[in-house]
Amino acid sequence: MRTFKYDLLKEIKDRWSARALSTQAIDKEEIYALIEAASYAPSSNNEQPWRFIVGFELNTLNRLRESLIPNNLEWAQRAPVLVLLLSKRTFTKNGKVNQYNQFDAGSAFSFLSLEATKRGLIAHGMGGFDKDLVRSSFNIDEDYDVLLMIAIGYPGDKSLLNEGHLEREKPGIRKDISEIIINTESN
Amino acid sequence: MRTFKYDLLKEIKDRWSARALSTQAIDKEEIYALIEAASYAPSSNNEQPWRFIVGFELNTLNRLRESLIPNNLEWAQRAPVLVLLLSKRTFTKNGKVNQYNQFDAGSAFSFLSLEATKRGLIAHGMGGFDKDLVRSSFNIDEDYDVLLMIAIGYPGDKSLLNEGHLEREKPGIRKDISEIIINTESN
Repeated sequence: MRTFKYDLLKEIKDRWSARALSTQAIDKEEIYALIEAASYAPSSNNEQPWRFIVGFELNTLNRLRESLIPNNLEWAQRAPVLVLLLSKRTFTKNGKVNQYNQFDAGSAFSFLSLEATKRGLIAHGMGGFDKDLVRSSFNIDEDYDVLLMIAIGYPGDKSLLNEGHLEREKPGIRKDISEIIINTESN
Repeated sequence: MRTFKYDLLKEIKDRWSARALSTQAIDKEEIYALIEAASYAPSSNNEQPWRFIVGFELNTLNRLRESLIPNNLEWAQRAPVLVLLLSKRTFTKNGKVNQYNQFDAGSAFSFLSLEATKRGLIAHGMGGFDKDLVRSSFNIDEDYDVLLMIAIGYPGDKSLLNEGHLEREKPGIRKDISEIIINTESN
């Protein structure tokens, strides 16, 4: 179980990457709200490098689904929406490499995931999918990194998970902050 | 001015990267709360690659400050706290390269920034600092990427900003979501 020392933002405390998703449809406006939330993440020079392919209609959804590795497809096939997160590698204004493009895309995913939590949705990010397949299927330019597949859905029935996934169906535990703060005063 | 189409999380709507920071001291527990919030970001394989150097005591704070480029030092010298965000390049369990380490660090920064907003604090991320200097000053291992300097403070007096910064002292405008969603149904 997670324990919090501080009174954190409710959505930060409540968010975790569940796999038991319901097949219940999601209103398209809800998905757009998540994308709008993502768009307010901070970014280097306000470049906003994030881009989204929204698998809401069956055609796009199926093309995203078929890229998932079997271990992810097993549970994420029930997600009514898959969203692919890309990020632009170069700055629009001068074409130079944007060293922060992935960092900033991570921020955008975070904002999306917290807005999802607020709306009673789960947004579960996955690195396990065939990025080359997605790139060719959607004809994605080399100027964009293919980063993350996000399964989105309302909470569903845990009993539909396989044994391995069921065992992991709980909030992940975190290191104590003393383990992630580097002590420098003694340097 | 920012306009929102959807009813987003208050902290997402309210957060922006102000430069007018007060020199007012921040309780150390507040900073720890921000780090705890960051620690609950999602990460690939729950690696939690983020690490923090907290410039709270004068020694560390000065060593972080001296790395800032002049344009950032100009306003960020008033921040009572600077936090340096690093991320571990490799997975702890097997030493393999973690392709998501920067992405996940971006998520952690996001969580930190929203928790700061909730607590009435500003957390302004900067890429403009001498990363080599910081690396050598704090003896940071090559297994860690030096990513972001974060100035943290309560809102302060705008009139102390220089002309260029004063002009930019407002929430950044975002692209419409139609510009960041890639249309695929016609493919």
